Amino acid sequence: MNPERVAQCALLAMLFELSSSPKPGNVDRCHDFSDIGFHHFLTSAVSAYPVFRKAANGRGSVGSLILEGVEAWQTWFLSSNTHFGSLVLMIPLAIAATKPGELHRELRRVLEKTTVIDAIDFYSAFEKAKARVAEVDSFSLNDRNWQETVQESGKTLLELMRLSSKHDIVAREWSTNYERSFRLAERLVEQISRWGQNDGVVRTFLEALAEVPDSLICAKFGEETAQRVSLRAGEALLDDTLGKAHELDLSLLAEDINPGSTADLIAASLFISLLRGLRF
Amino acid sequence: MNPERVAQCALLAMLFELSSSPKPGNVDRCHDFSDIGFHHFLTSAVSAYPVFRKAANGRGSVGSLILEGVEAWQTWFLSSNTHFGSLVLMIPLAIAATKPGELHRELRRVLEKTTVIDAIDFYSAFEKAKARVAEVDSFSLNDRNWQETVQESGKTLLELMRLSSKHDIVAREWSTNYERSFRLAERLVEQISRWGQNDGVVRTFLEALAEVPDSLICAKFGEETAQRVSLRAGEALLDDTLGKAHELDLSLLAEDINPGSTADLIAASLFISLLRGLRF
Repeated sequence: MNPERVAQCALLAMLFELSSSPKPGNVDRCHDFSDIGFHHFLTSAVSAYPVFRKAANGRGSVGSLILEGVEAWQTWFLSSNTHFGSLVLMIPLAIAATKPGELHRELRRVLEKTTVIDAIDFYSAFEKAKARVAEVDSFSLNDRNWQETVQESGKTLLELMRLSSKHDIVAREWSTNYERSFRLAERLVEQISRWGQNDGVVRTFLEALAEVPDSLICAKFGEETAQRVSLRAGEALLDDTLGKAHELDLSLLAEDINPGSTADLIAASLFISLLRGLRF
Repeated sequence: MNPERVAQCALLAMLFELSSSPKPGNVDRCHDFSDIGFHHFLTSAVSAYPVFRKAANGRGSVGSLILEGVEAWQTWFLSSNTHFGSLVLMIPLAIAATKPGELHRELRRVLEKTTVIDAIDFYSAFEKAKARVAEVDSFSLNDRNWQETVQESGKTLLELMRLSSKHDIVAREWSTNYERSFRLAERLVEQISRWGQNDGVVRTFLEALAEVPDSLICAKFGEETAQRVSLRAGEALLDDTLGKAHELDLSLLAEDINPGSTADLIAASLFISLLRGLRF
């Protein structure tokens, strides 16, 4: 696949994830947050296009490209964290997509090639994106000298991700060579062929949320809340009309609970499906 | 502005136009048509990105780029007409956007430079897009030998547009150097600053529809229906909550009446606003 098409698949993955509705608790096609709207997410996704193309062209390293992605959305005056987790998952996929071998295998090579420089760039991006403050073992952004600390540790970005893999969905994907993303990519194809594009994405999102509590919810509200949300996502799946998903959506919005990590996972899965020729 | 940024503005213009809701009678953020969904429009918009960048890079002529735009969306297996009118209005703007002079003046030069080859490419694109059959004076797509007829006439694309300017909103823009698009671009900025992004776009759309009956509605349902819709759009504007716009939306959807030409005009106006630095 040529780099331009890879970038289009990446952007569409972000846009499809964003648009599917009701995607309980997240900005979707039918509602905004008070501080950040659908159009901000559209802008953030579009701003990443040249970065994905560059990645697919084999230029730039993983960490620097994630940093460029965050800087790109900031040139549009977006100050909130819009797509940080999605970038972290999707940049390595974009790099792998134009390599000669099978996607999943090439991805492993991309992750294993990351260096300590990637780790430092990742942390810079993390800080710029105002993502949730990471407390990774001894590597904390609360440490003013985090750059030195990371540098001295000599840890690669993949090694850092392994340290966070227990409590962060995105880091877990890195640590397991995207085991869930690839599995969910297959589910997406099945669900979309059964339920259509929108409901197929929503149902796969609910499945993912039911399966593993969302790490962004955990970080903000604790494990118990995250588990309760997962339980309700599972119940919502039993309803063919998605009526219960609507109810869950309203109640999460009221409590300002958003399963953002699961959304990042679904964006990555959609990207994989599109790279593999998903029709819709 | 660099070509990449021009392409991003073009894509965002299409996405903002598409997403604003309620945009009576059109696919928007909250409803699909039965045969073509929101995600099809997302795909069509994304597929045009490299074509806009190419235009902004000064490569390709107007007609060939419009044709490329249609062919690009067809590589994603989209068979319906999604963004034909928008491409016809926005490609010349993308070409003009990177020229040294003022946008509106450069646009005139771009339109005036079109040739008979652009006219032929335009007609090919029109046919491929399955747009409404044009009956332009003696130039009809029902004529099997239209290509020869156009060639022999020696008419440039701009001259052909002038022939259609009475009964087609898009052609009228070409003939008047985008007089309405530029005026609506200013209205967009005012309305967005007053009502916010979504409602600002919706209200400018309603104003445009109230001002001039939609030519796609005219072509499908006749002038009387188009005028009735415009009257209702004007009434909907009087309601600050957009409740009447919602009602109009539901009733147009029920009758399958869609003001698609006005939507194209708003996409072009959004593009102009974004090129001129619209913040949101």
